Amino acid sequence: MKIICKKSDLLNRVNIALKAVSTKSTLPILECIVIEVKSNQIKLIANDMELGIETLVQGEILEEGIIALNAKIFSEIIRKLPDNDITIETDANYTAHITCEKAKFNIAGKSDEEFPTLPIIERDNFITLSQFSLKEIIRQTVFSISDNESNKIMTGELFEINQNEFKVVSLDGHRISIRKIQLKEEYNHIKVIVPGKTLNEISKILSGEIEDEVKIFFTNKHIVFEFDNTMVLSRLIEGEYYKIDQMLSSDYETKITINKKEFLSCIDRATLLIKESEKKPIIINIGDSSMELKINSTIGSMKEEIDIHKEGKDILIGFNPKFLIDALRVIDEEEVDIYLFNPKAPCFIKDKEETYIYLILPVNFNAGVN
Amino acid sequence: MKIICKKSDLLNRVNIALKAVSTKSTLPILECIVIEVKSNQIKLIANDMELGIETLVQGEILEEGIIALNAKIFSEIIRKLPDNDITIETDANYTAHITCEKAKFNIAGKSDEEFPTLPIIERDNFITLSQFSLKEIIRQTVFSISDNESNKIMTGELFEINQNEFKVVSLDGHRISIRKIQLKEEYNHIKVIVPGKTLNEISKILSGEIEDEVKIFFTNKHIVFEFDNTMVLSRLIEGEYYKIDQMLSSDYETKITINKKEFLSCIDRATLLIKESEKKPIIINIGDSSMELKINSTIGSMKEEIDIHKEGKDILIGFNPKFLIDALRVIDEEEVDIYLFNPKAPCFIKDKEETYIYLILPVNFNAGVN
Repeated sequence: MKIICKKSDLLNRVNIALKAVSTKSTLPILECIVIEVKSNQIKLIANDMELGIETLVQGEILEEGIIALNAKIFSEIIRKLPDNDITIETDANYTAHITCEKAKFNIAGKSDEEFPTLPIIERDNFITLSQFSLKEIIRQTVFSISDNESNKIMTGELFEINQNEFKVVSLDGHRISIRKIQLKEEYNHIKVIVPGKTLNEISKILSGEIEDEVKIFFTNKHIVFEFDNTMVLSRLIEGEYYKIDQMLSSDYETKITINKKEFLSCIDRATLLIKESEKKPIIINIGDSSMELKINSTIGSMKEEIDIHKEGKDILIGFNPKFLIDALRVIDEEEVDIYLFNPKAPCFIKDKEETYIYLILPVNFNAGVN
Repeated sequence: MKIICKKSDLLNRVNIALKAVSTKSTLPILECIVIEVKSNQIKLIANDMELGIETLVQGEILEEGIIALNAKIFSEIIRKLPDNDITIETDANYTAHITCEKAKFNIAGKSDEEFPTLPIIERDNFITLSQFSLKEIIRQTVFSISDNESNKIMTGELFEINQNEFKVVSLDGHRISIRKIQLKEEYNHIKVIVPGKTLNEISKILSGEIEDEVKIFFTNKHIVFEFDNTMVLSRLIEGEYYKIDQMLSSDYETKITINKKEFLSCIDRATLLIKESEKKPIIINIGDSSMELKINSTIGSMKEEIDIHKEGKDILIGFNPKFLIDALRVIDEEEVDIYLFNPKAPCFIKDKEETYIYLILPVNFNAGVN
């Protein structure tokens, strides 16, 4: 194998492939990136058995071939070489000779024999959307998946397509996040659970541009994202997702409208007084045209008033401040509507069209002490 | 006590005082910042027994007084308050009421009784230089102090003033760094050892501007830096500094002139192949108009040639690459001169005027294997 690539092109693609390289595996071959040169294509392949990535590199092909190189060493060498043409040549002993200007590296590679090949995917069922939309919808929901592996389904997100509506749901037992976007076309009904890890990695690779598209293919066991000469393949999580519709209610006793930034900064300040271990709730006292936030901890106390617009009853309710912060941070609107029922029922932060719904369970607190 | 300060002014000064706050001390009072309001001044004081800082805050004084507040909590509250006027008021129970717009914090403070007062310093012996020069000279030398506390003197830097020359020296047993700058005036002879920790902290506070001045006062036991309404006081390290003059030689067998950036990137690349634990030297083979760098490790091998200008003999010599990198990084010149004697004698990286001298000991290596 012998290829010549521009350093910037190669580095860009190596960084993409790195997302699917296993960092600590019992199989050393999974710590490699495979360079496959054939049929006029230079392809980098990585696979940690959960996530697989194939990405094409621009470059000149002088000889076809294939080699597996330790991803960490290979990527660091490429990163530190001068910004110029890089030649990679392999010999019969699987040694890679990497040359750039006057620098010459020799590193030991491996045959790709033991490297697990990526499954071939049927390309019937797919949707198309902008990379921007996909990246946004992941950011706006992925924070409320659970990291507790004992409940596998909660570690993933529901992707559901109904005609031209794409809905994403995540939940962790204390809260639910729901986002919906409109697609340009109508599609068959699809309902799958995608691992949160996959979504976190894919969002680092997506350009985030509105003009750039991404195709998502679905099979029974896999999901494939295809964009920018890159293919990211992931297993799906098996099982039935929670029936969330019955948890959503449009009934409420209190509705407030509040400036999001003010509310967020206020909660952010209040959390200063809470040590991780204390799990103190923030107490919200909703009155006619203002809302008082209070927190009392071993460190001190804090109190702040915020102007609101209110419909319905007064209410005194406590929340885990982190859950409010997480939801408010991913809402782009300047003003948000919050719907409440009673101090033991969840609150809903949502817009009128329900393009987003954030459900958060309240926390019990001793009203006498606070 | 009651004062009103702008958030930005207060935060800026709190960040300065934080540099002398003890993070883990058996004396909880050392984890505090003292706010002292008297004689028309608002002063923040911190003291971790090694370093003491006093800094003045702009603000309106409504009532004099003094209080000690936990530095971490106090600084975080100030940081997260809105960008507006902040009122700090204390009551007879040493509770601080911190108010900004509609936010109100109450935190428990302490009397300053147990807080160790800073010593009063004679202000006879001093020099003046720009904050830029001081910050630079620290950056250019402080990396080669030793962090081994068993040899206290090596953990500090020599500050020596001879007439209008200010010389700073640091060494760690493998290398010596020397920088000299010209002062605008002539001063008495001064020779003290300043703790490296002090210099690292002071460099974070200095503005780094050429127009901003700093005064440095010297006594037998202390050094004081005075600038921007701030005073930083530190103990000196007691003892006699090493006699370095006898280690410096102007004799050489080989002199090379090399492009600094090329040399640095090349060593940087070579170190990729070295694991921390291996302590492999980089081998430099100096020929007539080019120099070859080589490294061989368990990971692979690397070889690179760099054009040089050479006077004198060819030489094959090995170095710890980190020591070369550290020195080259703080030299601003595009080209550097390196003087060598033999493979067992130190090399000198220095300019003609000797405003900088970096001495680095070579490393033994097995020429046969490499």
